[in-house]
Amino acid sequence: MSSARLANRAIVYTENGDPSKVLTTLTYPRLAPPPPGALNVKFRLSPINPADLNVIEGVYPSKPTPTTALNGESLLVGGNEGLAEVVEVGEGVSGLRKGDWVTMAKPQAGTWASALTVEVRDVIKLPSGGISEVNAATITVNPPTAYCMLRDFVDLQEGDWVVQNGANSAVGQAVIQIAAKRGLKTINFVRDRPNRDALKNQLHALGATHVFTYEELADKATSAAIKEYTGSKPIRLMLNCVGGKPTAQMTRLLGSDAHLVSYGAMSKQPLSLPTSTFIWKNLAAHGFWMTRWYQGHSAAEREELMRTLVGLQLKEPEHEILTLRREKSDAEVTETVRDAIARIGQGMLGKKLLLQIEEPDA
Amino acid sequence: MSSARLANRAIVYTENGDPSKVLTTLTYPRLAPPPPGALNVKFRLSPINPADLNVIEGVYPSKPTPTTALNGESLLVGGNEGLAEVVEVGEGVSGLRKGDWVTMAKPQAGTWASALTVEVRDVIKLPSGGISEVNAATITVNPPTAYCMLRDFVDLQEGDWVVQNGANSAVGQAVIQIAAKRGLKTINFVRDRPNRDALKNQLHALGATHVFTYEELADKATSAAIKEYTGSKPIRLMLNCVGGKPTAQMTRLLGSDAHLVSYGAMSKQPLSLPTSTFIWKNLAAHGFWMTRWYQGHSAAEREELMRTLVGLQLKEPEHEILTLRREKSDAEVTETVRDAIARIGQGMLGKKLLLQIEEPDA
Repeated sequence: MSSARLANRAIVYTENGDPSKVLTTLTYPRLAPPPPGALNVKFRLSPINPADLNVIEGVYPSKPTPTTALNGESLLVGGNEGLAEVVEVGEGVSGLRKGDWVTMAKPQAGTWASALTVEVRDVIKLPSGGISEVNAATITVNPPTAYCMLRDFVDLQEGDWVVQNGANSAVGQAVIQIAAKRGLKTINFVRDRPNRDALKNQLHALGATHVFTYEELADKATSAAIKEYTGSKPIRLMLNCVGGKPTAQMTRLLGSDAHLVSYGAMSKQPLSLPTSTFIWKNLAAHGFWMTRWYQGHSAAEREELMRTLVGLQLKEPEHEILTLRREKSDAEVTETVRDAIARIGQGMLGKKLLLQIEEPDA
Repeated sequence: MSSARLANRAIVYTENGDPSKVLTTLTYPRLAPPPPGALNVKFRLSPINPADLNVIEGVYPSKPTPTTALNGESLLVGGNEGLAEVVEVGEGVSGLRKGDWVTMAKPQAGTWASALTVEVRDVIKLPSGGISEVNAATITVNPPTAYCMLRDFVDLQEGDWVVQNGANSAVGQAVIQIAAKRGLKTINFVRDRPNRDALKNQLHALGATHVFTYEELADKATSAAIKEYTGSKPIRLMLNCVGGKPTAQMTRLLGSDAHLVSYGAMSKQPLSLPTSTFIWKNLAAHGFWMTRWYQGHSAAEREELMRTLVGLQLKEPEHEILTLRREKSDAEVTETVRDAIARIGQGMLGKKLLLQIEEPDA
């Protein structure tokens, strides 16, 4: 190993804990040629998603598998999502060739690395062209969550209404755009904030039909206005990533036989609803987890979903690219990453952070 | 009207309120012959269900329609469920004849009466023979709720497990019996009480596989024991009529992809669950309301359900028959009914109360 050229870099850890303490940077050798059925890929952009931090903390149910492939030591590599480019294909690999763009189908694949060897069955090929690097790097978690939640629970027709909270989350913004493209109308709730009107304008520009704050929800005039907007069409789909009291209040906006789909719990409060809503209004409450969807669907179905999402031409999420430069030492890169994660943890970023990991100077 | 023989009696009210205050007794004339498509029926036994009291209080979503058919005044007649016998059929009525037993398909039909004229489409014919009066009078609400909840949400196979709370409720006891007859195993939870062991024995005699109290649920040994019982078979159906904290604790016993079906909220607490249970365990929460089931199903489907339930030969619920005697005055009958309802309200009865309303002495 020691004689091989130290051509790659990854953000790794050996035990769960506070990401801004346990993450370190590893410089590791050039990859060996891939074995049969595998690929060597080079990551172009890899987001730091909030759930990635929960994985490192050890509080997320989907766990990465330790690998010894980088330097012979047992390590965990951070990162679940990312855009990779195929650089070398193993024997017997068909349908993928050098230069193709792929994303990871296997959860917790370890995308915070400059290069990895991956099994063909663990990647999803992206259709070539028509999508930016940023969109490709963020296409496997948030946009398909939005797309599947809008498709899989209620058979919505053009003109039907959807209500959601956390509307300015990455999923929420995808919901607004996908709904608008399908001719669905959205009622969106966000937290109050100093730049409330700017945010409302931003969501309207994405295609939001109406945007309210949770404070406005408590006002009877808001529910009366919503009743007026929706007229005779009862709202049958509600998407939730918040929980707690405002979520319970929102269910009052729903008609009979509605479905409430939860994909997050930003308030850290439980989902607490009057039992009568289930019995008398026939509400059904579900969860949605993209990881489970991937586990339950074939490679063909995953690629079909990616093609559909690329075709939707969603707007790039607000983002910042953090380039981990080749000339920096491992210690300097570690400090850069830990600082960035601390900023995310303090909620000071407000946009998606994407790692661009350069091959280090040997 | 005044010259007609005063042959009937009903428990009626004119405005919502405390049942032990607003209910009165009305003696009313012999029924006119039924119009085409209708029947005259005589009620043999009519239960007082807890929901009937909520209807009278005005806090239940299913409302009775005021009738002027009894004495010309606009009145509400109490009672939703009951066993009636056909005494006269109107023109064009086929499939029903004098002496047939029927129950009410229409909610809030006003069963606390000695006799009523009802539309054919508002009744369900019971198969003749093979069922006691008490079982027939209580067959349209609780047993089909149990039966449908065990059938409609999870495709359970022999040997599969079901967990429920409020296991000694009328529905809970029907769940135990129907599950046992289907070869399903039940884990049943009840409130602690002085005669706990007697209750456990009673539920075991009905076919319960295991019975625990909510206090036992808090003990880790109980969940370990349940894990041992169910072995490799994850529990995929939970039935809930309680809500609140013990219900949330019970969901920890469930496996992935489980369904939680609520049909009551005896604790008056909301259903409060961690959002992660929905997302990561893919729990789906539903309500079940027998009234909605009847509204959504045809007469043929309703009769098929009744035939199935009669065929199951469920044990009679613990009950007390309250005979409203012919020789008593309306005022005396009112007092008897109000007293009985007060006993139900104070939870002092512990068994199903059935009204047997005799035709009054004129």
